[in-house]
Amino acid sequence: MEKQVLGGLQWRINVPNGMSKELDPECSCYCKPWLALKSLVGGLVARVLRFLDKAWALGVSEPKKVIHGFKVGIALSLVSLFYYVRPLYDVFGGNAMWAVMTVVVVFEYTVGATLSKSINRATGTFLAGSLGIGVHWVASQSGEKFEPIILGISVFLLASAATFSRFIPSVKARFDYGAMIFILTFSLVSVSGYRVDKLIGMAQQRLSTIAIGTSLCIFISMCISPIWAGDELHRLIHRNMEKLAESLEASVANYFKDNQSGYPSQEDNSKKTQAYKCVLNSKATEESMANFARWEPAHGPFNFRHPWKEYLKIGALLRECACCIETLSGCLNSEKQGMEHLKGYLKHASMAVCSHSCNVLRELSKSVKTTTKSSKLYLSVGEMKFALQELQNALKSLPTQLILEQVLASQANENKSTTKKECAPPVMEVIPLATLVSLLTEIVARIEEIVDGVIKLAELAEFKAFNEEKIAQNQSTSNNQRSDNPSCETEP
Amino acid sequence: MEKQVLGGLQWRINVPNGMSKELDPECSCYCKPWLALKSLVGGLVARVLRFLDKAWALGVSEPKKVIHGFKVGIALSLVSLFYYVRPLYDVFGGNAMWAVMTVVVVFEYTVGATLSKSINRATGTFLAGSLGIGVHWVASQSGEKFEPIILGISVFLLASAATFSRFIPSVKARFDYGAMIFILTFSLVSVSGYRVDKLIGMAQQRLSTIAIGTSLCIFISMCISPIWAGDELHRLIHRNMEKLAESLEASVANYFKDNQSGYPSQEDNSKKTQAYKCVLNSKATEESMANFARWEPAHGPFNFRHPWKEYLKIGALLRECACCIETLSGCLNSEKQGMEHLKGYLKHASMAVCSHSCNVLRELSKSVKTTTKSSKLYLSVGEMKFALQELQNALKSLPTQLILEQVLASQANENKSTTKKECAPPVMEVIPLATLVSLLTEIVARIEEIVDGVIKLAELAEFKAFNEEKIAQNQSTSNNQRSDNPSCETEP
Repeated sequence: MEKQVLGGLQWRINVPNGMSKELDPECSCYCKPWLALKSLVGGLVARVLRFLDKAWALGVSEPKKVIHGFKVGIALSLVSLFYYVRPLYDVFGGNAMWAVMTVVVVFEYTVGATLSKSINRATGTFLAGSLGIGVHWVASQSGEKFEPIILGISVFLLASAATFSRFIPSVKARFDYGAMIFILTFSLVSVSGYRVDKLIGMAQQRLSTIAIGTSLCIFISMCISPIWAGDELHRLIHRNMEKLAESLEASVANYFKDNQSGYPSQEDNSKKTQAYKCVLNSKATEESMANFARWEPAHGPFNFRHPWKEYLKIGALLRECACCIETLSGCLNSEKQGMEHLKGYLKHASMAVCSHSCNVLRELSKSVKTTTKSSKLYLSVGEMKFALQELQNALKSLPTQLILEQVLASQANENKSTTKKECAPPVMEVIPLATLVSLLTEIVARIEEIVDGVIKLAELAEFKAFNEEKIAQNQSTSNNQRSDNPSCETEP
Repeated sequence: MEKQVLGGLQWRINVPNGMSKELDPECSCYCKPWLALKSLVGGLVARVLRFLDKAWALGVSEPKKVIHGFKVGIALSLVSLFYYVRPLYDVFGGNAMWAVMTVVVVFEYTVGATLSKSINRATGTFLAGSLGIGVHWVASQSGEKFEPIILGISVFLLASAATFSRFIPSVKARFDYGAMIFILTFSLVSVSGYRVDKLIGMAQQRLSTIAIGTSLCIFISMCISPIWAGDELHRLIHRNMEKLAESLEASVANYFKDNQSGYPSQEDNSKKTQAYKCVLNSKATEESMANFARWEPAHGPFNFRHPWKEYLKIGALLRECACCIETLSGCLNSEKQGMEHLKGYLKHASMAVCSHSCNVLRELSKSVKTTTKSSKLYLSVGEMKFALQELQNALKSLPTQLILEQVLASQANENKSTTKKECAPPVMEVIPLATLVSLLTEIVARIEEIVDGVIKLAELAEFKAFNEEKIAQNQSTSNNQRSDNPSCETEP
């Protein structure tokens, strides 16, 4: 209901009990913009507060990222000394700018990334600088008329080729930044060379400022609470194993427990059940970390030539397993209705397979985490296989059990003289159980592949033997305790 | 067998037929380095040739990337005119460097990415420049002693905060580059301001060169064969649907066909079966494309506020479906042995479900590709559901059929008077079929979710209605024919 009252709008709403209620008339023209401004400012403040809240939460959960921020701050303050300290400024002058720029652009979160970018930057600058000076010399020999033409064409051709090369996967993975710096330096050198004659001196100064910037970055990133890409990859892999175990456990437990304790338990578990999603999305992070880890010197338990590629293989296997768990949890969720009485027969055996599989995954995770060959691994795998066999046997004996139950039920019915008679469960009702068994079988098969992958890694990376395990375990627990955090770590 | 002969090594190998054969003695010391050099050069040449081969293949399969290279070349050649043309150089001088730098850094593959980087760069530079000048002014007012201290502290604090902010997901997704440029410009301005007094004039010049560089980039990337992030995302999504259909078809066909025609067919199909892997790995690309697409102006069938987020939702659903297909193909591969005679009963019904599902996926793909509401979609979905019902019925009637067959077999056996008697198939043999049915059911359920997603997209994006379909189809076929290519497009 709407009524026009003397130039102002009046709103009236009908309340369910039959009465109608008059709403406050609209504000006058003066207070409109004021209200709009107020809501705008309020909205902005709320957004800023929410943003700060998020930032604070991130800082608390991952203090390493805050420390990284401070490290960059320190590096920049140090490099700006080039401007403040008179003797340094006298040597480098305006070229000190390149040191600042290098620090901003090259300083990355992990040591490996910083090293890779530094090497890329230095190599790209050096190559492009020498080529630029060469082209500039050739152009200057060919007369004033042809000089800009030669320079223009060379810039066009080299920039096109270098830009295209950045799409080639092998270049993209390792030298993307170097190619960009190559284009940048080449155009700057060959073009600015048209005016500046002291090219070689300038190139020397620029290279030395870049060298100073990169070495400062490398020094700070390696000395002040270093974050190694290798460590991150290592941690990602063993935490992903734990996540898979968590997911698998939660989804199977959900399926069997849900109907006794009601919905709340499902919601409690939903976060655990979804843990596999992190695993599914970790491919890009794993690849970039493995790429950066290659540049890193020996650190902690990792040698210079640590087999990082094996981590990628294990990561791929983990993702395949996660896929299977995803399907399992999907199937279990969609087929929850009916056949409650059938579930009971396989509950024990299924839970056993699940818990033994999780044991294997956790054993693998521990083995990777502590870089020791696990003494219990083969035992756990054996138990897992045995449990699977038991489950398959339980499914095999299901028809017999069902017939028995049916006979008992019909006897009971006859005793009670009721006409209702339970019929044999149709094959459709067994399908969900068969699927469960089949998917668990598949998951076990994939876990076995992961076991093989980890064994290969243990061989190549020369993991410590059984008897050294305990010492290493104690050490690594104290090392890793502070660095572990429970959030999804696919995007560091 | 090894024998020392007068200072040189002689190698002898035993050939299977009992004779032993003398190998060529080792080269003298003179020819060793020569051989090493030869093999080194040979290896290098081979590597370079392989690299060029790869680059050529990439160029042939995706000419758009070659064109992008040329576009960058053109932009750089144009921007270097600032150095060659005397009046321009007189205005901008050394600051022309910033235009070159802007072009190199800002020019990206898609229009959206270029726009996003340009806006980030301009905003970052402007904000940091004004803040830097402000801080510089405050510092200069506080006396010569405190000036470096204030500047140093402000650089440290702002650089730390901005670096940390780059880890916050919302900033990382949209303003990562802007934050970096902010740090860079702020340090350069506030620090170099210590020496240079003509700060404001310099800032103006720098901003105008950056404006020239970015507008040149935007102009070239939008006018010369533009590559829209929105288009790429759109294409990725509908091609992923086709890939899922291909994979599903190939893996089910493999399962049922393999044993009649032998192994070769499996190898032929393996590429098709693996097509889902591209879908699984496309998350990062989809997200960055959707991010860039938001910046793009209206183009082709897409408005400025095209619902790009819906594409991400559909992408996630596609990945879930791909996961299911992954598991299906894994299960089918690992359970190929045995129960050949059982397969026959469900072959027809399974193939029907599979082909109808693929029809739905292809119909969806066509609908998205042509941005028209499909007229046949509901019909196809109905057929798919009906086929699934048929398959489930077939599985239900399996026991009856098996008993019938058993009776017939035993009759035949009695007629032939043999003692061998086939026993009833144990439940274990039905499991693979039950799994197949169950997974197909799950896949159908997920495809239905995709259907819902596409219907929602069609509503939000105002897809054309049925009757306009034909015209649009003809248009888009001619438009898309040249841009479609069969490789995995997750990493453009």
